[in-house]
Order: sequence, then structure tokens, then C-alpha cells
Amino acid sequence: MKKLITSTAKLSNLITTKKARIGILGMGYVGQALAEGTTSSHFTTLGFDIDKAKISEINAKKRKFLGATDQIENLKSCHIICVCVPTPVNKSYKPNLSIIQGALVSIAKYLQTGQLIVIESSVAPGTTRNLALPILEKSGLVTGKDFFLAHSPERIDPGNNKFTLKNTPKVVGALDEISQKLALQFYKTFVKKVVPVSSVEAAEMTKVLENTFRLVNISFINEVASFTKALGIDAYEVIEAASTKPYGFLAHFPGPGAGGDCIPVLPYHFMEAAKKQNIPLMVTKAAAKVNELQPKKVAQKAIEIVNGKANQPNYKPKVMLVGVSYKAESKDLRHSPALKIWESLEKSGMTVSYHDPHVPKINGHTSQKISTETLKDHDLIVITTAHKKVPYQFIIDAGRPVLDTRNILSKYRQSHIFRL
Amino acid sequence: MKKLITSTAKLSNLITTKKARIGILGMGYVGQALAEGTTSSHFTTLGFDIDKAKISEINAKKRKFLGATDQIENLKSCHIICVCVPTPVNKSYKPNLSIIQGALVSIAKYLQTGQLIVIESSVAPGTTRNLALPILEKSGLVTGKDFFLAHSPERIDPGNNKFTLKNTPKVVGALDEISQKLALQFYKTFVKKVVPVSSVEAAEMTKVLENTFRLVNISFINEVASFTKALGIDAYEVIEAASTKPYGFLAHFPGPGAGGDCIPVLPYHFMEAAKKQNIPLMVTKAAAKVNELQPKKVAQKAIEIVNGKANQPNYKPKVMLVGVSYKAESKDLRHSPALKIWESLEKSGMTVSYHDPHVPKINGHTSQKISTETLKDHDLIVITTAHKKVPYQFIIDAGRPVLDTRNILSKYRQSHIFRL
Repeated sequence: MKKLITSTAKLSNLITTKKARIGILGMGYVGQALAEGTTSSHFTTLGFDIDKAKISEINAKKRKFLGATDQIENLKSCHIICVCVPTPVNKSYKPNLSIIQGALVSIAKYLQTGQLIVIESSVAPGTTRNLALPILEKSGLVTGKDFFLAHSPERIDPGNNKFTLKNTPKVVGALDEISQKLALQFYKTFVKKVVPVSSVEAAEMTKVLENTFRLVNISFINEVASFTKALGIDAYEVIEAASTKPYGFLAHFPGPGAGGDCIPVLPYHFMEAAKKQNIPLMVTKAAAKVNELQPKKVAQKAIEIVNGKANQPNYKPKVMLVGVSYKAESKDLRHSPALKIWESLEKSGMTVSYHDPHVPKINGHTSQKISTETLKDHDLIVITTAHKKVPYQFIIDAGRPVLDTRNILSKYRQSHIFRL
Repeated sequence: MKKLITSTAKLSNLITTKKARIGILGMGYVGQALAEGTTSSHFTTLGFDIDKAKISEINAKKRKFLGATDQIENLKSCHIICVCVPTPVNKSYKPNLSIIQGALVSIAKYLQTGQLIVIESSVAPGTTRNLALPILEKSGLVTGKDFFLAHSPERIDPGNNKFTLKNTPKVVGALDEISQKLALQFYKTFVKKVVPVSSVEAAEMTKVLENTFRLVNISFINEVASFTKALGIDAYEVIEAASTKPYGFLAHFPGPGAGGDCIPVLPYHFMEAAKKQNIPLMVTKAAAKVNELQPKKVAQKAIEIVNGKANQPNYKPKVMLVGVSYKAESKDLRHSPALKIWESLEKSGMTVSYHDPHVPKINGHTSQKISTETLKDHDLIVITTAHKKVPYQFIIDAGRPVLDTRNILSKYRQSHIFRL
């Protein structure tokens, strides 16, 4: 096998001189944000994805230092390979590692002496050592000697303009000291602060802890909000008051449930890994359950509101969901609570349409225009995600019942506006 | 009935001129901290307690503006009465409101026109309106007219020198505008920032949210630590790494379980109130359960460590608990996990002794001196609370097995030091 890099000093030098070529597997929001970083450091970067449309889109931009391809053999020419593919769960929340496994098999196939592989995908602790390493070593090359392996969990928060790749500290764990040193050196060129940890497992666990902390606290505040609602207490007022405590509290806000590819996903990887160790994870499990049920609760509330009409024979109430992506200003539909609300409403015999300025089409449906006519044609409008571009005042003025799951209409007091 | 205060303007004036006399019911750490505040504002303050020793102790200090008494009829002469009595749960975690009920009955008995009553005790939302108000109005006086009623949850964190009564914002809710205004005016004289909320329920709920948030996150991190332990990952390293995330994370640390009179108590009030509303509170319940089990887990770990000796016929292994109060630098034993660990160890046939520089005696036991002899006489030393005054180096040097539940010995690497 041809030696791509003859020594670790050589790779280190390639990083210093920005001559290292970077391969990024998976050009979703994580891979693309990483490519922003590497190209900002003038590293020639090649993004790999199976989505031809995405590749064309990236290449059409003719960004300096950046190309994209679906030709996986090009991995051979990369000095550093970052794995940013998703690690999703299926509809019944079972972790599916086939995508990352496939990516690793490809890397192993074209593995070159001296390459540094960094896994950024969110995984349960042990995955880098027990899943990735054996696949990579099937190449016949040995880690820590022939190639290098590290884990650095992605911390990209889509839409967060304050904290980006650059100014969010990057945690790096590795299988050996050389891998650790090289990975730290690499990230240091485009991330302000790198945080070395003592093992790949500590790095993997850091991400698990961060995401699960979020799920636990979002589910907790959702159950708090169910209680305050029952008592007629404004949950937001209470959260604001609690936030005046200068220590020991962090505000989370109620909503239709946590969505996206991180917060409601990684805790299931965590639970599966804990099951193998017979660790019960009671709090995490409860949080996951609350989050699974939350969209159903919203649907239930919606059904209550339109209930009068539903009782008329053969009448199918019409509900419009405003904002179907999982997060404001995003088009990402993965684990979006809006889609789960949609499903529940349809099961209850309702006709569902939607409006989303970021999602023109979905499952054969087209984003509805917000007009007096379309609004009047619906029995209920549910604000499922609070995109900025939505004409809220116009929606309210149409006078149809509105269920606000995001507290975006908090300043309005009209009786046709319902809250969670 | 004689009119103590003839108008609200009069009470307002008494506050402005610091001539209002303050009565504080319950001179525990909350009442005493409050008395620090009121006397710092030169309000003549009378503390009420049933504990004669505590009264003598307070009076012996001859603090300017402060006296203490068990003569409840002296409430008659107070313009403002603050209720700081505990609202404990019993051994099976059932909320016990008899103490606060008793206090309210006393206040009602001596209630004077114009008095302002502020409840600081932590209670479930609805308690001020549905429990306190009816008791007080049995006096024949009417709230908002004859007397005034507010709720301002105490936020005293014992041993916290950075955030005290003075610089921790104080949340105030009331039954009516006049009560709200008077309570805010009163607290503003010795607390930097007051935070008005729209109802007594919002004020009560703020404290419930703060405490339950803590319990949820402490239990969550304890279950995370069980998992990391099983995988040989250092939980503290992971928490430190996660803490480098500049948003959306707040560090909590593993330990023998949350103790004291707040964090493991108020969530049970919350759960009882939620049960009445048929709100499940799955996350909160799971957190409470994890916290109930945590001392048993520590005991189990201790038993594993001394297991060898336990197998000898008739041998009763000896365990010394170091630190029995629930928190470092405190003497408070309420819901201290150390006492629950003690109970579990005794049930398992071990002989338990303890050392605590702040607790000279407990249940017929005396705090052991830390000497080579006493240490050598034990099969295991468990650090249950990490008081500063404990000679940790000396304990380690004695060479007996040590189980550190507080990560106070993190810098030591000897093989006879065990971690949770």
C-alpha cells in the first residue's frame, strides 16, 4: 500500500502549513459547518455525501478550498477524515448505526498510512473503540501506528449566531497520545478553544451528557407547565421569576416537545448503552417518555378546541399547522414535533394542512399561503414552530382559534388564542 | 378589637421610618437569615420559636434590634409577621403541613387590623390561598382590607457566602395589590432586588420549580455517574468537559444524594399537589426515586468493599462515616444521606460510627476522634460529607479503605481509595 503520509511529523507539518487535505463524510449541517471552519483555515476540503443534489449545490457555490463529491475513493487523497454522518433512531426510537458503519467501511477500504480519522457523529460511549476501531483495523493497518483515531463530538447549534464552531470549545478524545495531539492541532487552527479529555469515551459521553441534560430539562419543564396550566399559573412568569435566582437554575421553556437530530435522539443511544450495563436511567427514560407524549398532548389540546365542530356528522375539522420544521428558522424536519402532531390529528379524523416559509413541500402537501381565505377555511391554526417570517398579527386578525405552542403570541390577550 | 395599624398608609410609613416591628415565626436558618436582614435595616425584630434553647441562644447574643421568644401572644404587637417555619415531609415522604398550620392558627388568634403576613415557608402552589387564607380569615378579619397577605419564598442557601439574603433577588406574590405593594416595600429595605409576580401561586411555584430543578438534575447526574462508573469513565471529567459548552448546560455533580430541608422535600409537596390535578410528573417522580435509592447504592458499594471481612463468622465489619450533616460546613441533619447510609449499613449487619466536626452527638453516638487508632479499628471509612475541617491526608495515610462519595479526594490515586 502506498504511504500517503510517511510520518506523524509530516502530518503535523501538513496541518501547520495548511497543506493537509480534509475529507468530510456527511455534508449535513454538521459537515457543512465543519467545512466552513476548515476552509476558513485554508485547508483544501472535500465533502462526501450520497445526496447528488447536495453535492451539486455545494459545487455550484464555487467556494474557495471547498468541493463535494459522492466518489468515495477520493478519501484516499485526504490526510484528515472527519466523520459527520447522522446516527439516527428509527420511528420506534431504536438507534440505527448503519450509516456510520457504512461510512467506516468506506474509510477502511481506502485507508492510507498516516491518515487521521476523527469521528464527530454523536454516539454512545464505546462506539469509537468498539465499533469504529475494529472496522478500520480490518484494513490491516494498526491504530496509533499506521493511522490515527480520535473523537470530537460536534456541538453545532443550527441557527445559533452567537455560538458557532469557531467560538464553541471543542472537546477532543483519542485512542492514543499521537492521535490526540494531531486532532488537537488540527482543530486549534479554526476553533478558539480545544478541550482535551483523557479518552474517546469521555469525549463521546460529553455529548451524551449535554444532549440528555437538555432532553431531561425540556421534558421536566413540559411537565411543570402541565401542572401550572391546570392551576391557572403562567409557566413563563414562573420560569422568569426562577431565573432571577443567581445560581443553581437554568431556564428551559415549554413547547410541543424537543425535536431535531440531536436532543431527542442521542438519549436513546444512551439508554441502549445503559441497558447493556444494567443501569436503569430512570430520569432519562421518564424524560424520553414525556417527550414522546408531548406532541400527542398538543394534538389532544387541539382536538378539545375544535371539539364542537367535530361532533357534527361527517364534518372533518381542518387544522393548519404553522411551522413544521423542528426549530425556528430551520427547514430540518427530523423528529419535528409538528409532524407527530399532524399524525395524531389525522388519526383523530382531522384534515391537516400547513404553512412553513422554510418548507415548501412535504409528503405531497404544499405550504399554504396565509390569506384571509385560507385562514377562514380552517377551524384551528396551531403555531407549532415560531418562524420569524410568519405574519402572526394577520393570523390573529383573521379571528380563527389559534393554539400557540411556542408562546410567540404571549403579548396578545384575545380569547381565541389558546396556550399550551 | 384594638386597631394596631389604622391604615395602609400608616404601615407604609412605619416601613419607611423603620418603626415597623417585625415578627418572625420559626427561627431556623431561614428565620435567622431574615432577622439578619430586618435588623440590618434597623427594624425591631422578634423571633418566635418553640425551642427554648434556641431562644436563649439568640437572646444571649444581645443583638441590637433582635429578641426571641416562645410567647406567641407577642405577635399582637408586630406590624409585619413573616412565617419561616418548616414544611417537612415525614419518613415516607408525605408532606406534613401541621407546623405551618399551627403557626397560622396562632397568627389568626392574635391577628390585628392592618398587619401584613408574609409566608416564606416553601409550599405547593395554592397553599397560601387555600390553606393560610381561610385560617387567617377565621379571625373575622378580611384580607386586602383588614389584614394583608403575601408569599415570598425563602431562597437562603446555607453556607453560600456569595449569594445571601441581601443580594439574592426576592420573589413576591400577594393576594391583592395593597399586600403586594407593602411586602415589596418591606423587602426592598434590606434586599437589593425584589421581583414582583402576579399571584401568590406564581411565587409559590417559583420555589417549587427551583428546588425540583435541582433534584431532577442531581438525580440525573447520579444516574449518569452510575453509567460512567460501569464503563470506567470519570464522570467529573465529563461534567467538566460538558461545562465548556457556553450555553444550554449547567453542571451538577454526583454524590450520595440530595439532602437538607429543601431540595429533597419540596418536590414531594409538588407531587402531592400534582396528583390532585391528575398530572403525572414522570420526570420529577423518577428523580425523587433515584434520590431515595442513592444512599442505598452508596451503602451497597461500601458493603462490596468490606465484603471479605463480612464473610468471617460472627465478624461485624466496622464502618466510619465522615461527615453526617447533609452539606459541608453545616450541622443540619435533615434528610442527610449519611443517616440513610448509616441505616442501610446497620441493616446489613455492620457496626457504624461517625466523625463530624459540626455534629458532636447524634442518637446516642458521639463523634469519633480521627486518630491512627480509631481509623485502624475500622474496615472502611466513608466520606459522606466533605467538611473542610476533616484531616483527609491523615485519613488516607492510615491506609484503611476509604470510599469517597464527594470527590474530595480526587487528587489522590492510591488503590485503597474508592469512588462512587
